[in-house]
Amino acid sequence: MSKVNAKEFLTANHDRFLSEFNEFVAIPSVSADSAYKADVVKGAQWSAEKMKSIGLTNIQIIKTDLHPFVYGENLTAGPEKPTVLVYGHYDVQPPDPFDLWESEPFVATIKEDSYIYGRGVSDMKGQILASFNAVEAVIQSGDLPVNLKFMLEGEEESGSPSMKKFLTDYKDLLTCDICLNPDAGMASPTQPSINYALRGIASFEITVFGPKADVHSGGYGNVIQNPANELARVIGSMIDADGRITLLGFYDDVQEMSVEERAELNRLSDGTKDFLEQTDVPKLFGEKGYTPIERAGGRPTLDVNGMISGYTGEGGKTIIPAKASVKITTRLVPNQSPDKTAEQMRAYLEATFRDTVRWELVYDGGAPASISDRKSKYVKALSDGLQEEWQTQPIFERSGGSIPVVGEIQKILGVESVLTGFGTPGNAIHSPNERLHLPTWTRGMRALVNTIYNLGA
Amino acid sequence: MSKVNAKEFLTANHDRFLSEFNEFVAIPSVSADSAYKADVVKGAQWSAEKMKSIGLTNIQIIKTDLHPFVYGENLTAGPEKPTVLVYGHYDVQPPDPFDLWESEPFVATIKEDSYIYGRGVSDMKGQILASFNAVEAVIQSGDLPVNLKFMLEGEEESGSPSMKKFLTDYKDLLTCDICLNPDAGMASPTQPSINYALRGIASFEITVFGPKADVHSGGYGNVIQNPANELARVIGSMIDADGRITLLGFYDDVQEMSVEERAELNRLSDGTKDFLEQTDVPKLFGEKGYTPIERAGGRPTLDVNGMISGYTGEGGKTIIPAKASVKITTRLVPNQSPDKTAEQMRAYLEATFRDTVRWELVYDGGAPASISDRKSKYVKALSDGLQEEWQTQPIFERSGGSIPVVGEIQKILGVESVLTGFGTPGNAIHSPNERLHLPTWTRGMRALVNTIYNLGA
Repeated sequence: MSKVNAKEFLTANHDRFLSEFNEFVAIPSVSADSAYKADVVKGAQWSAEKMKSIGLTNIQIIKTDLHPFVYGENLTAGPEKPTVLVYGHYDVQPPDPFDLWESEPFVATIKEDSYIYGRGVSDMKGQILASFNAVEAVIQSGDLPVNLKFMLEGEEESGSPSMKKFLTDYKDLLTCDICLNPDAGMASPTQPSINYALRGIASFEITVFGPKADVHSGGYGNVIQNPANELARVIGSMIDADGRITLLGFYDDVQEMSVEERAELNRLSDGTKDFLEQTDVPKLFGEKGYTPIERAGGRPTLDVNGMISGYTGEGGKTIIPAKASVKITTRLVPNQSPDKTAEQMRAYLEATFRDTVRWELVYDGGAPASISDRKSKYVKALSDGLQEEWQTQPIFERSGGSIPVVGEIQKILGVESVLTGFGTPGNAIHSPNERLHLPTWTRGMRALVNTIYNLGA
Repeated sequence: MSKVNAKEFLTANHDRFLSEFNEFVAIPSVSADSAYKADVVKGAQWSAEKMKSIGLTNIQIIKTDLHPFVYGENLTAGPEKPTVLVYGHYDVQPPDPFDLWESEPFVATIKEDSYIYGRGVSDMKGQILASFNAVEAVIQSGDLPVNLKFMLEGEEESGSPSMKKFLTDYKDLLTCDICLNPDAGMASPTQPSINYALRGIASFEITVFGPKADVHSGGYGNVIQNPANELARVIGSMIDADGRITLLGFYDDVQEMSVEERAELNRLSDGTKDFLEQTDVPKLFGEKGYTPIERAGGRPTLDVNGMISGYTGEGGKTIIPAKASVKITTRLVPNQSPDKTAEQMRAYLEATFRDTVRWELVYDGGAPASISDRKSKYVKALSDGLQEEWQTQPIFERSGGSIPVVGEIQKILGVESVLTGFGTPGNAIHSPNERLHLPTWTRGMRALVNTIYNLGA
């Protein structure tokens, strides 16, 4: 039976996989720092050669204004079989601060704790390799039961500036039925999970202008509007006592969760204990009528990310500041539009700011939320594949974060994404000593083999 | 007639006065910088010698933990005459930034525009010298009609840390009927003014603590309270739509202005035009029911002086900040107690902050407001003295700022202060190119001669 053979292939080739892991990590494909530009190209070339070696064809390195995409396919399953687009990014976060690393960031290092250490091992070179290895194992064990397309970008850690244009320009090449995105993670090494929804985002900067320069608060207090007081008032009224956002119409388009979905989300826990432990706050806070885990993934937010005005050093300075500013992001849920949210924000500010100050709103853009059908045959294929390996039912999760590419793929290619991955909490992605639990990675490859067969069944 | 003689003396000695002005300015008595500590002592010694030369006795240089006081008196008028305590400070602000000065800061320089330039010429070495010169002129022209005590400090530009203890320890030495404080200024070279009220102050720092470290706003938005949003809400509700401060009981002790006083304050202007021009705000804002000039001097305030939270650099960072903090000062009017205000602030925060965050209030202390009887014989003596010289009725002003020593003298010595001075707007006190209008200074000495005779009449 091919599935058994494929898993034997994985076992037999484990050492080679690790040596290739070393090779891939050794390429410092840091996309955010132009000093590494040539290394990012090397990352693309290495990926292209690897695609060739596992049996993909029509391999292309496609240039953009920043870093290249890499494409490869194997369509031998034929038109009656579904086509799966595997998404990945071969670029990594910058390694600094260097001095906090306990091993070289660009030398994959396995330690006694069964973790492999290095920049990008979890986010997401290890996940790309797990996908490559699973595909290679299936191809080496008989016919590939699904059509596969791989699309790897080199800009994810830099905000994917070329993604929209790429998806639009190569829409025909990328035609598919489903996108498999292994850039998510697992709840724990023993608990697989499937992420079927991501929140969107809209970003703002608001500046309030008071006197033309800082003025003495003795001379002008109670005479002119203090821009910091006024900004506080306007921001402070954006969330009401029930934790609801007060922008007019903000909830109009929000897609409500069904009773069934809410039950599923709360199946193992409503999140209270974990969130309290992780943050050490005295008490959770959020929209009334929803559990913490429902709020985290399924309800929108409005958060100050940063705020500044006046004198913030040691001691005091008795001034009315010339200006006050705040950075705000809202996380959006399915059906909400970032641009519409920006209009609501502007309308709110127009209605709320007093005419005693001047103000400015900068909308820094956004990305829509995304959601996939939890009951689709593709999600079931992944779910069964994970369950077969771990012998436990995967958790279905909504992520509170935003992965803009998922929304873009939904919008431009018209297909849903299923998200998974074999990183676990505590892997220090984006931080020094990034790591990946190797036994979980190995099980992940086996689960992907299962999934590929399920998708083609 | 002695008054005529005294004024002739002033004219005859004008060049000597200017040369002494040079000597005094040449001593860089910067109290805030310990590098100048010996120069501050020199400033005290110069003042003591000057006191001796004009006919004061019992001269003392009194050490403190920081910089010395200088005391001198002339009590020859006898016990049936009032005793006037003249307050001054011989220390000056630091001169930097040096490179913005167009002449040497510690070389008094007279320019064609009739101004004398140098650090401290306006604030307040020139005002001390005007007082010395007027007293010398009167003494040289016959009997001194009032008892005089001079008390000069060397710490005013450093917050007068030794004042309270000095006033308490030397309460008997300083016994007097009225304090004359020439550390205020004039509305213009042609419009003398008398400042009869100063606002007090109470200073606070509030910090709100959210998650134990900055956390991802995708993962925790709508799950935990954002400390910046919560701080904004609490600060934003401290002033209502009528510009009134919402701390419970805040206005209970506020001394209301009489109809007559309000009419006097608005006599020349209600301030609207000046305040708009000075600040360039689109519209003034403050407590309903009072004109801008009434609000500026006679009503309390609550201002954010500085506020900071989270990420405030270029671009964005999608976090819920670990904390948010704000510096606030309230300006208080007569009868309000800084300490009681601090209790009201604490009660307000306790009632208003949600239990989803931890918070901390630091009360940085304060000083009470001060007010003098505008109708007292002492104020009338000064008012008539100014009017005789300028041939126009002085403006009676309330200052929005705070001069803590005035409140301390009222509290500890039990006497009121009358404030005047011959600096004018645009004198750049505390800034490079500090200056003083010499013709106004000369007229000021003549007005002080008038005042001394009026006080003894």
